[in-house]
Amino acid sequence: MKFTDYLLERVTPIWDSYYTHPFIEEIGKGTLPVEKFRFYIVQDYIYLLDYAKVFALGVVKAKDEYTMQEFSKLLDGILNSEMGTHRHYVNKLNITSEEVANTKASLANISYTKYMLAEAFTGGMAEITVALLACSWSYYLIGLHLASIPGAKENEFYGNWINTYSGDDYKIMNDWLLDLTDKYCENLSEDTKEKLVDLFINTSKYEYMFWDMSYKMEI
Amino acid sequence: MKFTDYLLERVTPIWDSYYTHPFIEEIGKGTLPVEKFRFYIVQDYIYLLDYAKVFALGVVKAKDEYTMQEFSKLLDGILNSEMGTHRHYVNKLNITSEEVANTKASLANISYTKYMLAEAFTGGMAEITVALLACSWSYYLIGLHLASIPGAKENEFYGNWINTYSGDDYKIMNDWLLDLTDKYCENLSEDTKEKLVDLFINTSKYEYMFWDMSYKMEI
Amino acid sequence: MKFTDYLLERVTPIWDSYYTHPFIEEIGKGTLPVEKFRFYIVQDYIYLLDYAKVFALGVVKAKDEYTMQEFSKLLDGILNSEMGTHRHYVNKLNITSEEVANTKASLANISYTKYMLAEAFTGGMAEITVALLACSWSYYLIGLHLASIPGAKENEFYGNWINTYSGDDYKIMNDWLLDLTDKYCENLSEDTKEKLVDLFINTSKYEYMFWDMSYKMEI
Amino acid sequence: MKFTDYLLERVTPIWDSYYTHPFIEEIGKGTLPVEKFRFYIVQDYIYLLDYAKVFALGVVKAKDEYTMQEFSKLLDGILNSEMGTHRHYVNKLNITSEEVANTKASLANISYTKYMLAEAFTGGMAEITVALLACSWSYYLIGLHLASIPGAKENEFYGNWINTYSGDDYKIMNDWLLDLTDKYCENLSEDTKEKLVDLFINTSKYEYMFWDMSYKMEI
Repeated sequence: MKFTDYLLERVTPIWDSYYTHPFIEEIGKGTLPVEKFRFYIVQDYIYLLDYAKVFALGVVKAKDEYTMQEFSKLLDGILNSEMGTHRHYVNKLNITSEEVANTKASLANISYTKYMLAEAFTGGMAEITVALLACSWSYYLIGLHLASIPGAKENEFYGNWINTYSGDDYKIMNDWLLDLTDKYCENLSEDTKEKLVDLFINTSKYEYMFWDMSYKMEI
Repeated sequence: MKFTDYLLERVTPIWDSYYTHPFIEEIGKGTLPVEKFRFYIVQDYIYLLDYAKVFALGVVKAKDEYTMQEFSKLLDGILNSEMGTHRHYVNKLNITSEEVANTKASLANISYTKYMLAEAFTGGMAEITVALLACSWSYYLIGLHLASIPGAKENEFYGNWINTYSGDDYKIMNDWLLDLTDKYCENLSEDTKEKLVDLFINTSKYEYMFWDMSYKMEI
Repeated sequence: MKFTDYLLERVTPIWDSYYTHPFIEEIGKGTLPVEKFRFYIVQDYIYLLDYAKVFALGVVKAKDEYTMQEFSKLLDGILNSEMGTHRHYVNKLNITSEEVANTKASLANISYTKYMLAEAFTGGMAEITVALLACSWSYYLIGLHLASIPGAKENEFYGNWINTYSGDDYKIMNDWLLDLTDKYCENLSEDTKEKLVDLFINTSKYEYMFWDMSYKMEI
Repeated sequence: MKFTDYLLERVTPIWDSYYTHPFIEEIGKGTLPVEKFRFYIVQDYIYLLDYAKVFALGVVKAKDEYTMQEFSKLLDGILNSEMGTHRHYVNKLNITSEEVANTKASLANISYTKYMLAEAFTGGMAEITVALLACSWSYYLIGLHLASIPGAKENEFYGNWINTYSGDDYKIMNDWLLDLTDKYCENLSEDTKEKLVDLFINTSKYEYMFWDMSYKMEI
């Protein structure tokens, strides 16, 4: 059994709860109030800046050129390339870079990103890949789930979001992270693996809290 | 106005709410159920291990021997000396080191400590001193507040806790941290100071969440 | 006076000695034995991997999106884009990635890169920009110096190297780093500035040692 | 074979060269000029401040309370307790704390300590224990070697230094570090072990350079 399969098994109850969270359900139905989505996009933008820093720590802690290159490519993708979906909604919702710079990260946001950063600073490649995985992978599965709902992908406003995270480009990126996680975690002791499971469970809980914070627009 | 006075001014509403939180109020009355206090002591023990790591990062980032010595002394005090109060209650409540090692930190606990650690890794001495301050200082003020309640200090079970945090030894340690914070923050730009205020507000919120998590015994 | 002008003033004697070092002189004359240059290219390749990690720490410690983006762009440029000159000579000299992966960094190489990394971990943006600057800037000045020698730019083997470091693309990158250094260092205390001068002097000495190690092919 | 035995085997030629270095030989004969020793003591004092920071990173990266306590105890021992030998010679040689604070670390000194710090930041407990070991262990063996020279321990000036590093207190500390190294390194992959051997070889070379720098009083 691949380590990432084992990770998924351990968080299934938490991840299942994402699908029934109103934020996700209402994206699927196309009924999510735009103001909630706007709140989410701004907080997610702030989130991504710290998420990118975890990739940067992947470059710092990587022990071979190939891994450095891959982390660097993803980092640059997050920060400099279109960030497709985000730029799309940022423009559509008239979110300026001033607004993002002046918005404070919510406490749920901070709790999540600073946890990943602290683990990335104190740990190694195993901790870094697992820390990044809950966000990356659950978005893909949420994307697939929403894409399977009749009409959801065609929704004028939310369709773009669903198509991005269920799409091939996103899958390729997430598959790379899955492979990298398996590579760095396969030969670890049981004790270390259980600590990584805890890390995966915690980030999975933070994912839920992020959807909840967004729906409640809680700062 | 000293920077630490300004910090206190900015968090007064949050800190005032500590005094009326049932966990604190019931310590003052001596009515807090022991199981809630026991839950708190175990989580606080886990908290202190990461809190100690922030002191260790103070040693790492310090630029002069004196500051290194002081942080090291406090670090060693936390980890190796009696940790008076803690050891007292750990013994009284039959908490074994196995129990502590096998207890998982609650999410509120993790959110708080990993935030401090991430700030300590990415920031400098100003961030480290401010990150440590909310815990240290608010405990002193809570200690003083409880000590002023007639009979509270004499309570057979909780008196020891109140006497520790309102006591002279604790005050000396906290005053040192206050002075150090003022020293490292006085000449910073307004922009940087506002970021430190945010850090102090966030750790103050986490302090509240820690009391709340303890009262509700939430994992 | 800009801080970077002051920095240059302080290292002038060291930087002047680069121009008269046989490794540089013989590139200018086109007489440098290819085996010495080959040795240098392999060590410099290893150097660049750690140098890239300092840029990654720039992403981690940056406090605004723009700086993160710029550091990320340069990082990705080092690791994933052509690295023009390097790839050119790596191909020309039949250096395989296996050879690079199996070559150990010389002690002079390690001393230099680990010093930059340690400063980047313990310091902030000022330390990071200054740590990166001696390599970046002195290469530009060496490039200009060599480009002014009649016939040097036209040398069949070494011309490419000279053209790269005296070229406009390289100048743009180096100017960006100069501006960033001035931005992060201008409002610092005299004491902190002197520490940064020490950092610049030390990295300048390591630059000399790198040329010398390359000429002597010392491991 | 214990990992530390294997480490020693790999550096034997380098470590043997310490015994015949004039700095060590002349301590053994009691003929080392005091000015050279004084130069060494000041540089070693500066060295110890960064060496202490590696112990502090041991506290940060440790995964259990016991290891945190032990690293903290040693850290505090370095910074706050008598540092027997050092304080003895600092007093005897009229070295003031101002002199230490105003003396710049030599490049050989910086190269060594920043290498250990960079490895401690990017690596884990295995890297930290191995990074600390060359200094700790080779001093014990040099101490034993010098103690075996007739009359050396009784030398009025250098006897104290020899007695410290060949003594039981020092042995206990070094044995603890040896055990910790074996504990953290025993189950690692061959590839990782070879990287740790490189780390041990490099720090062993830096040890030699430190003696040489001291004898030549090179800044």
